[in-house]
Amino acid sequence: TKQYNIACLPGDGIGPEIVAEAVKVLELVAEQTGVTFNFSYGRIGGIAIDEDGTPLPDETLRIAKAADAVLLGAVGGPKWDQNPGHLRPETGLLGIRKGLGLFANLRPATMTDSLLEASTLKPEVVAGVDLIVVRELTGGIYFGQKKRFTDENGRDTAVDELIYNEDEIERIIRVSFEIARKRSKKLCSVDKANVLESSRLWRKVAERVAADYPDVELTHQLVDSCAMQLVRAPKQFDVIVTENMFGDILSDQAAMLTGSIGMLASASLAEGSFGLFEPVHGSAPDIAGKGIANPLATILSAAMLLRLSLGLDDAADKVEKSVWAVLDAGHRTGDIGADKSKALGTIAMGELVREEL
Amino acid sequence: TKQYNIACLPGDGIGPEIVAEAVKVLELVAEQTGVTFNFSYGRIGGIAIDEDGTPLPDETLRIAKAADAVLLGAVGGPKWDQNPGHLRPETGLLGIRKGLGLFANLRPATMTDSLLEASTLKPEVVAGVDLIVVRELTGGIYFGQKKRFTDENGRDTAVDELIYNEDEIERIIRVSFEIARKRSKKLCSVDKANVLESSRLWRKVAERVAADYPDVELTHQLVDSCAMQLVRAPKQFDVIVTENMFGDILSDQAAMLTGSIGMLASASLAEGSFGLFEPVHGSAPDIAGKGIANPLATILSAAMLLRLSLGLDDAADKVEKSVWAVLDAGHRTGDIGADKSKALGTIAMGELVREEL
Ligand SMILES: CC(C)[C@H](C(=O)O)[C@@H](O)C(=O)O
Ligand SMILES: CC(C)[C@H](C(=O)O)[C@@H](O)C(=O)O
Repeated sequence: TKQYNIACLPGDGIGPEIVAEAVKVLELVAEQTGVTFNFSYGRIGGIAIDEDGTPLPDETLRIAKAADAVLLGAVGGPKWDQNPGHLRPETGLLGIRKGLGLFANLRPATMTDSLLEASTLKPEVVAGVDLIVVRELTGGIYFGQKKRFTDENGRDTAVDELIYNEDEIERIIRVSFEIARKRSKKLCSVDKANVLESSRLWRKVAERVAADYPDVELTHQLVDSCAMQLVRAPKQFDVIVTENMFGDILSDQAAMLTGSIGMLASASLAEGSFGLFEPVHGSAPDIAGKGIANPLATILSAAMLLRLSLGLDDAADKVEKSVWAVLDAGHRTGDIGADKSKALGTIAMGELVREEL
Repeated sequence: TKQYNIACLPGDGIGPEIVAEAVKVLELVAEQTGVTFNFSYGRIGGIAIDEDGTPLPDETLRIAKAADAVLLGAVGGPKWDQNPGHLRPETGLLGIRKGLGLFANLRPATMTDSLLEASTLKPEVVAGVDLIVVRELTGGIYFGQKKRFTDENGRDTAVDELIYNEDEIERIIRVSFEIARKRSKKLCSVDKANVLESSRLWRKVAERVAADYPDVELTHQLVDSCAMQLVRAPKQFDVIVTENMFGDILSDQAAMLTGSIGMLASASLAEGSFGLFEPVHGSAPDIAGKGIANPLATILSAAMLLRLSLGLDDAADKVEKSVWAVLDAGHRTGDIGADKSKALGTIAMGELVREEL
């Protein structure tokens, strides 16, 4: 039978609980599909700081590199919030992105009819929203040089460098065109070309690559205008591609339009099919260990893993359909609008998805 | 009688039409208050490119500097969109900000009950929203060094430098604390301190300045989280302060929450009381010259001018109250939801405000 290696990095807070449910779903998929998944486990984030003295132990990077795909829970918590930079959970996240070359972050924001009420926007504005933000993840101001110095007037001064070369831009633009080609053939590239030199390069490269995708319509939007339009008329968007920092902001804004951040999955892809998959929501330290976290975003991330890294499209479709079926049947965890009394726990929700499967 | 000099820079598109209405309102205010306004006029943006060969003629800067305050319409249009950087309308805007030292951009986003329907958000989410984004306007990545070069691997590469010193941060934080003190004594500073060195300096300075404002509660929020929270629960915010680029994005997002961008005013202040006042909306080239543009944002900007630069608080209050009264009476321009048949034109709307006055 075909064998696949999946590295699991549960992380902090609710991470271990939600990853456990996704793993159970994957195990059932393996059984049904006649493949074998070998799971390995590594530490990242706060737990790694506590146990290994670093948010990203070499061993974790080794396990991840040896796998076909990585499933991550979430990192962070108040316990480590006051730590110096190199001992913060997020540093582990940035490190694994760079270490694994995960340059393409895919963040779908899809409005499902059964969760329409959860949105703070009017139903007619968000019904049918089905967009994906493609965020460049290993370049830009996140990884440019940082400086801190006292200037000639004795003032404490800080500098962050936003840097992109044409190759970094080209590969993320290509990924976006490929995705757009399989969807509605509309790609919106977001930049701040009226102010930033890096955005002018971005736009130039996007235009050049567009020549290879005559079937896809490329438009450009300024980041401030895009932030407006996402509120005003989100249905106008299909695939949005943008640089790292703009993508951080816009993908979170887009996610919140759906109102159900506990439902949103994400993929971070390297060249080839290797990828890391994780829910969009955080580690929710306030509810960690209580068994009430919503595992669906992680289960949907596992579905993306099946599709994008393992090429098991049918299995991915089945997992996603099972999740929607469970929701359509009215089952809810507390975060997506269940009454306190009827709210399902993490394990019960996972079980329902597996029953559907 | 007391004399004040007001420089008017109508700019492009609908700029001249809407500034004309605001000037008529100011003339009436002068009469009623027993003061004298001396209006001078200058060119900026596209019209200045066409007539003077530069988006910001020296003469315009001279006129502005000689005034007590500046009233600006809007700049830009498709005609100049393909121009090289130094011949673009926005460059005039950036130039005047820097040239006049306008470091504090105040962008109120207030939801008025009579316009509740215009929002794409649910009424219960936005009713009562009354926030103000204070954006640092003369520093950061907008004015840092820009580079374009071919790297050692022959790749076209672009760099933008995000730079802040502690003095630049301190003065904008102080302005924000002063504003918060006069409102609900809550200040939310937005940064990306988990990634950016400049944000870590920003947060440190904010904490230091906070010691001088023990009566104001200072909180910090990450920019991605703020973009989410503005969608999820905008009422949680009162005064938000942030750096230039984050402020560009968040202030536009916040503006669009109200759904009535044609109603929003802004102020850009220098040290002291000098300031430039302009509507948040753009030059709307598609409706320029048609006499249908909404002049209310410009009239409300003139009210901010009266209050913040001239210290004529009573007159400012009266202008604002007149605008709300006109809206409460059901009068609308096309952009804020009038039926085509009932939509008022620019001049008619200006007249109604003056009648109220
Ligand atoms: C934790 C933080 C460094 C990270 C980022 O900004 O990339 C997070 O916000 C995300 O979007 O995954
Ligand atoms: C036109 C552009 C340079 C400007 C900015 O980014 O500051 C505009 O978006 C604004 O917010 O006033």
